[in-house]
Amino acid sequence: MGKRVWNLNPGPAVLPEAVLEEASKAVLEYEGKGMSLMEMSHRAKEVDKIFKDTEADLKEIMGLGDDYSVVFMGGGASLQFTMIPMNFLHDDQTADYVNTGSWSQNAIKEAKLLGKVNVAASSEEREFTYIPKIFDLSPDPAYLHITTNNTIRGTQYHFDPDVKVPLIADMSSDILSMRRDFKKYSLIYAGAQKNLGPAGVTVIIIKKDMLERVKPGIPTLLSFKTQVEKESLFNTPPVFPTYVVGLVAKWIKSQGGLAAIEAGNRKKADLLYGCLDEYSDFYRAPVNKEDLSWMNVVFRLPSEDLEKKFLAEAGEKSLIGMKGHRSVGGVRASIYNAFPYAGVEELVSFMKAFAKKEAGIGV
Amino acid sequence: MGKRVWNLNPGPAVLPEAVLEEASKAVLEYEGKGMSLMEMSHRAKEVDKIFKDTEADLKEIMGLGDDYSVVFMGGGASLQFTMIPMNFLHDDQTADYVNTGSWSQNAIKEAKLLGKVNVAASSEEREFTYIPKIFDLSPDPAYLHITTNNTIRGTQYHFDPDVKVPLIADMSSDILSMRRDFKKYSLIYAGAQKNLGPAGVTVIIIKKDMLERVKPGIPTLLSFKTQVEKESLFNTPPVFPTYVVGLVAKWIKSQGGLAAIEAGNRKKADLLYGCLDEYSDFYRAPVNKEDLSWMNVVFRLPSEDLEKKFLAEAGEKSLIGMKGHRSVGGVRASIYNAFPYAGVEELVSFMKAFAKKEAGIGV
Repeated sequence: MGKRVWNLNPGPAVLPEAVLEEASKAVLEYEGKGMSLMEMSHRAKEVDKIFKDTEADLKEIMGLGDDYSVVFMGGGASLQFTMIPMNFLHDDQTADYVNTGSWSQNAIKEAKLLGKVNVAASSEEREFTYIPKIFDLSPDPAYLHITTNNTIRGTQYHFDPDVKVPLIADMSSDILSMRRDFKKYSLIYAGAQKNLGPAGVTVIIIKKDMLERVKPGIPTLLSFKTQVEKESLFNTPPVFPTYVVGLVAKWIKSQGGLAAIEAGNRKKADLLYGCLDEYSDFYRAPVNKEDLSWMNVVFRLPSEDLEKKFLAEAGEKSLIGMKGHRSVGGVRASIYNAFPYAGVEELVSFMKAFAKKEAGIGV
Repeated sequence: MGKRVWNLNPGPAVLPEAVLEEASKAVLEYEGKGMSLMEMSHRAKEVDKIFKDTEADLKEIMGLGDDYSVVFMGGGASLQFTMIPMNFLHDDQTADYVNTGSWSQNAIKEAKLLGKVNVAASSEEREFTYIPKIFDLSPDPAYLHITTNNTIRGTQYHFDPDVKVPLIADMSSDILSMRRDFKKYSLIYAGAQKNLGPAGVTVIIIKKDMLERVKPGIPTLLSFKTQVEKESLFNTPPVFPTYVVGLVAKWIKSQGGLAAIEAGNRKKADLLYGCLDEYSDFYRAPVNKEDLSWMNVVFRLPSEDLEKKFLAEAGEKSLIGMKGHRSVGGVRASIYNAFPYAGVEELVSFMKAFAKKEAGIGV
């Protein structure tokens, strides 16, 4: 593998080098079978093993047992925005959502097309710079939906809500980045392209008792019942992207599981937020301290001109992908699981030099 | 690349070697950018170019102009079974379907969940061994849906129906295998994993005037209006699978376009069906002559035991993937675009030797 840039893209995002090397080989030939994995039947025993192993590895990493199933589907998290109310929001019910930013809003918008929605909490009045801790649930909601990490504003749930209703979480941008009490969740979903693999597959972890709640008469493919019963093989699933998710799961295990991944992410976040603190006269992190995302570190500079200059000069140092989301501007450094500590060191040393050069701040 | 088997799988299926080699490199690094294509933002200009070029190449190959758009989505052809009635079958309307086998039946089943369906023709009464030529359309249908190739029974439309209503076709298993009058179609869709690329992306070619018919209030992601307006980037699309489709499109152009591909497929089909004809005392092709599929050559042997033996011994000769679909049994040789003529020669010589050895037939 050639010289790599420091890829701070918000997603699709950096993947472990060992995963890329293995995946590259599988494109040519898989397990000495004389064909590419991309040419292999989705009903071949090799592919079956990929799906089964990946499910088992993910459940092991998350500490989940036989009461959960894992499903692999195309369509992205956005398809889940529709599938969740389509499956679980019955006509006489209300679904509760917590609004912590754009992705929550998209989930809410799609649910409203299909049924009644109650926004149980929102941080919109403070521009999504914090995570609400108190939820105003409706009397008997179909479920409560949260978005555990807001990639755009850089907030993250550092707790798992205690509720007596089925808890559903979009974990697209922070799944497997820290230990969580995954057993509290009835359904977890994540587009793979941040912490789990490439774009093209969504991982859905579903508690089996949820299947009893699935509405009858919905499209067969989009029923979680179908997906669980057919073990993701109702139709041809995205085999290659799922395979890469499997490699990432094995990589997480090889790193020491979630405890080790969490320690690594905390160390990276501490270093980067430490720099923002130290240089708070120059860099401004708009987010509530206790809700700071370990995945997406969002900050502003004194002016938009300086932000442009910052991004351009960072690019020259091979620190790429830090332009803030088009809806909010600013700078965003995405430091997902596979982003190396050495890259954060590089970034921090660049940030210090930049602050010194532009404003004479620091030593 | 190592020694390859003769991959006669019905799908996912064989891909051109040059495509695999290029794709394997892109997994490690794309265009000298210091990152894998799988790590690249779907909004990066390199990825934008992949989507735009692939759309342009597909339209060029099919002879389609600016009145068509191409969309790339996850979810497989099965998601289209739902999206098509969801978008186009209004409450007061009927949708017409031609039933030529399992995949048509699945499309019909999903449409019936969402609206009124008329089966305008069916070959079910003769076990789907032919393609109906006369359609009994309802007075003013929302559209007519056909399935151009039946992978399971081995039938294929060798004509493009003339109808005055929007014509929609599932071309999953024979897209770009022959010249067609694609302009007759208002919407064409195909799961990539047979003739176009790996599993994980569906290609939808849609005539822009269809967008006026899209029903309001449907899920945003699943609206063809969204997909066309956002150029497949409403959410993160399956970038890597789409990239491979782009490589396959370039490969088709390098072969001389559809005229050359068609000539190659005809030559392969002629050789294989010629052998079935010549050895008709031993091999039995159950399909109506004029409707024989050039993609999936389905045949029976005198007994199921002989079929088992045939498949086992073929496997020893590296001729793999020929077991008939579990719903019908028998033998099926899938010879998609990328399957080489030399492989069909190998297969035919094996078939002749097998007939001679088992039944003393031939020379």
